[in-house]
Amino acid sequence: MKTITSIHQMHELVSLAKRQGKKIGFVPTMGYLHAGHAALLRQCRKENNLCILSIFVNPKQFGPAEDFRRYPRNKKHDEMLAKKEKVDIIFYPSVKTMYPTGYLTYVHVRTLADHLCGPRRPGHFDGVTTIVTKLLNIINPDVLYLGQKDAQQAVIIAQMIDDLNWPTRVKIIATVREPSGLAMSSRNSYLSDPERYQAQALYRSLRMAKKLIQAGERRSGTIKQKINAQIKKNTLARVDYIECVDAKTLVPLRTIKGHVIIALAVFLGKTRLIDNIQVRA
Amino acid sequence: MKTITSIHQMHELVSLAKRQGKKIGFVPTMGYLHAGHAALLRQCRKENNLCILSIFVNPKQFGPAEDFRRYPRNKKHDEMLAKKEKVDIIFYPSVKTMYPTGYLTYVHVRTLADHLCGPRRPGHFDGVTTIVTKLLNIINPDVLYLGQKDAQQAVIIAQMIDDLNWPTRVKIIATVREPSGLAMSSRNSYLSDPERYQAQALYRSLRMAKKLIQAGERRSGTIKQKINAQIKKNTLARVDYIECVDAKTLVPLRTIKGHVIIALAVFLGKTRLIDNIQVRA
Repeated sequence: MKTITSIHQMHELVSLAKRQGKKIGFVPTMGYLHAGHAALLRQCRKENNLCILSIFVNPKQFGPAEDFRRYPRNKKHDEMLAKKEKVDIIFYPSVKTMYPTGYLTYVHVRTLADHLCGPRRPGHFDGVTTIVTKLLNIINPDVLYLGQKDAQQAVIIAQMIDDLNWPTRVKIIATVREPSGLAMSSRNSYLSDPERYQAQALYRSLRMAKKLIQAGERRSGTIKQKINAQIKKNTLARVDYIECVDAKTLVPLRTIKGHVIIALAVFLGKTRLIDNIQVRA
Repeated sequence: MKTITSIHQMHELVSLAKRQGKKIGFVPTMGYLHAGHAALLRQCRKENNLCILSIFVNPKQFGPAEDFRRYPRNKKHDEMLAKKEKVDIIFYPSVKTMYPTGYLTYVHVRTLADHLCGPRRPGHFDGVTTIVTKLLNIINPDVLYLGQKDAQQAVIIAQMIDDLNWPTRVKIIATVREPSGLAMSSRNSYLSDPERYQAQALYRSLRMAKKLIQAGERRSGTIKQKINAQIKKNTLARVDYIECVDAKTLVPLRTIKGHVIIALAVFLGKTRLIDNIQVRA
């Protein structure tokens, strides 16, 4: 396993791999790796000749009041996990390397960031699409692996790749959960024990909502209310949003129909957690 | 010489070329090819194993009141010229192929479009950076050839490629001119004979300005005034702008210093012409 910090070196390495006809799989992360990342890496390892992991806490996708500085980092642990998952290359650039003085260019996907986390985190998704554009150009992967847990991010990146014509396939990998149902997230490390206990309620409420739909409920207002009630009853959380959206356009639905994502964001103390579940109605 | 209209076919072809270790040169154009394009193609042919030309009149870089519909097109002529310049592949996609229904993604370079043509053509440079991003992802060239005639476009694209990390070198090729000094442009075909005669004054005024600077003049106000007077005296043109800007930041200068571009845009009848000259002071 090699750790590379220079863009030029990555370009050279990728160019050689292409000449050798190697298939490149890529897992972009912000590090502090957990079982969710491991699932992406395992799939990537299985399906490609070259398995590349990037670790970069991207300042452009954090708002000024958000947790960029305190976002958890642990290079030693990440390297150990990457080695265990047989990663070939870790791309580990500095902020200065990715955003040198005089940096000016941004990628924007219209409308898809108008809902869910978009309005609550202004600029976040432009930060995401911009860094992913850079990483795609540096690594030129055949396949990009993303987690379903960040559902809106996955939809936006897939749309961007389709629109901007990289020859890259996107694979969305199912959310990995703790036995309690809590979705794996680097930000779970912020949670106190009581908060972590309460956090189980998120996925439980999403499963309840899915069952309601499967039992015939089609009014999204009713579904959102019941999720909200369950979270209020079992946690001290402040709900940021609960929404039922079309899985492709991310537009909120009054009536459940077709392929739907039920998504939520809540604050448990200072920690913002997101989760989602998919239903076909 | 092959003409390809499908993005997927281009991806396949480029991927094969990469496996064969071929160096790819790329000249993006809107067609109606002239001696300026031919100079780009000749350089591209000389320096690469695969010489790819794209022809696509990009609707996203035209304003609603601009000349998208009447922009000159002549596929037969373009193919003949391309063949003569030993182009390997013409990429010739439809608007529907490049911007299918539901298209949402745009690339924006900050500040560099705040001057010169930027404020006069709102959205133009976002259209340019977006289509060039798409073409770079489709063709994945080692070298991209651009004309110095579109100076602001060249600076913006070079910045974008640097910022977004494609492994692509940019080469800017000197403006090709008619014997009269008029810069080659597909839009010259709009000019009546009297307008074409008057259009000589543009480059003549730029050369005059360069000589003034070389003789020691440093006040950009004086230089712009003299250019304006010369154009007013010799043409019926309406001046859109005359500006002395820093060659890297494109910021207008009060005092000429360093690497400078003197750029202008004028309307001759309904036709908008641009030209520029570089000076080091």
